[in-house]
Amino acid sequence: MNKDTSSAKPLAEMVEENLIQYIIENDMQAGDRIPNEFELAEKLGVSRSTIREAVKLLVSRNVLVIRRGAGTYVSDKKGIAEDPLGLAFVHDKYALAMDLLDVRIILEPEIASMAAIKATDEEIEQIVDQCRKVEELYEKGEDHRLEDVKFHELIARCSRNVVIEKIIPVINTAVVLFADITKRKLKQETISTHRDIADAIRSRDPGAAKYAMMMHLIYNRQMIAKLIKERDEK
Amino acid sequence: MNKDTSSAKPLAEMVEENLIQYIIENDMQAGDRIPNEFELAEKLGVSRSTIREAVKLLVSRNVLVIRRGAGTYVSDKKGIAEDPLGLAFVHDKYALAMDLLDVRIILEPEIASMAAIKATDEEIEQIVDQCRKVEELYEKGEDHRLEDVKFHELIARCSRNVVIEKIIPVINTAVVLFADITKRKLKQETISTHRDIADAIRSRDPGAAKYAMMMHLIYNRQMIAKLIKERDEK
Repeated sequence: MNKDTSSAKPLAEMVEENLIQYIIENDMQAGDRIPNEFELAEKLGVSRSTIREAVKLLVSRNVLVIRRGAGTYVSDKKGIAEDPLGLAFVHDKYALAMDLLDVRIILEPEIASMAAIKATDEEIEQIVDQCRKVEELYEKGEDHRLEDVKFHELIARCSRNVVIEKIIPVINTAVVLFADITKRKLKQETISTHRDIADAIRSRDPGAAKYAMMMHLIYNRQMIAKLIKERDEK
Repeated sequence: MNKDTSSAKPLAEMVEENLIQYIIENDMQAGDRIPNEFELAEKLGVSRSTIREAVKLLVSRNVLVIRRGAGTYVSDKKGIAEDPLGLAFVHDKYALAMDLLDVRIILEPEIASMAAIKATDEEIEQIVDQCRKVEELYEKGEDHRLEDVKFHELIARCSRNVVIEKIIPVINTAVVLFADITKRKLKQETISTHRDIADAIRSRDPGAAKYAMMMHLIYNRQMIAKLIKERDEK
């Protein structure tokens, strides 16, 4: 095994690129099944173990997902790696919380404004529903965080900018995974500013959407600043 | 091999997390060597093949790098994946160029302004040097693109925001890798606006730095819009 996998490495990486090309050229979408090992080995003229190695690399990049006993599929994570920015390696979680917030405060008000202009009626309905869902979880004392990320993700998708659509979930998920210091301290502020954001987008008012998002994020920034101050005074 | 690797998968992922913790707790930096397979297997109480599997996953995440015959080291890529946002999968390169530019135009003027305030004298010297280097390559007709990315990266580092520091190289590298449509068409504009940016940061003038960066990016945006228009008229 040792010899096989180490010698297969550079070849596996070439096959990895071939498989990406295959997915793009065949316009394969999340959930589509790729051919099995035998077929791929034949198609690309390499050994099954090389295909297996390449598939593993693509699984670790979240391009493919293996369903036991069912085959290998295009992942719905669209090739976005876990922790793609390596934020797990940032030591100071309080500073990271502030840095993430500062990036959000530059990006997300602009995004909310774009969403108010570009969202379809169906997307607006989804945003309003998602706003309600987060609120219900908050009220019930259940974990609202991943649904909160989804609220921001839905808005980002309405920007019609593929880079924004990919970056916002990464940043918002990083807050939950690596820098969740505000916890449930902003319940009322979150509920009311989320509602303002959803209302402004529904009213197709880009200015109101921008400033509602800004207010939402400023509440968070002030809380993070307060928590950092408390920590430093200890 | 088949059986071993598939059954080792979830365990390998746990070990992967353990190794990340090990790197963080020991404050290991890029270029530091991690203990060999034998030692790690003993330390973590798992088999060498599981260690090998976990190390491979971390290599594919750019956390570790294997140097043949020398050992396994912490990568200088700091866990930032190749194409971490999965932009290789975006079909329309012209639209991607515009989307990348639109994100840069939101972020980078703010960043230039932060850099003018926070850069050290040494960093300012590096930025000025890098500006000159890009200019020389441009004048000689050589490939300036990766040095251009580095110019923007040096400025981003002066923001003192770890998220910005990680995101800007990703976005700027994506322009080169996946959406380089403006090519060498903006030579004079690039040289003069780069100089303006470096000068404004050296003068510690945040407003001038912000608007110099904005002008730099607007030239790019106009060129991309023109190229898209020409393509669509064909």
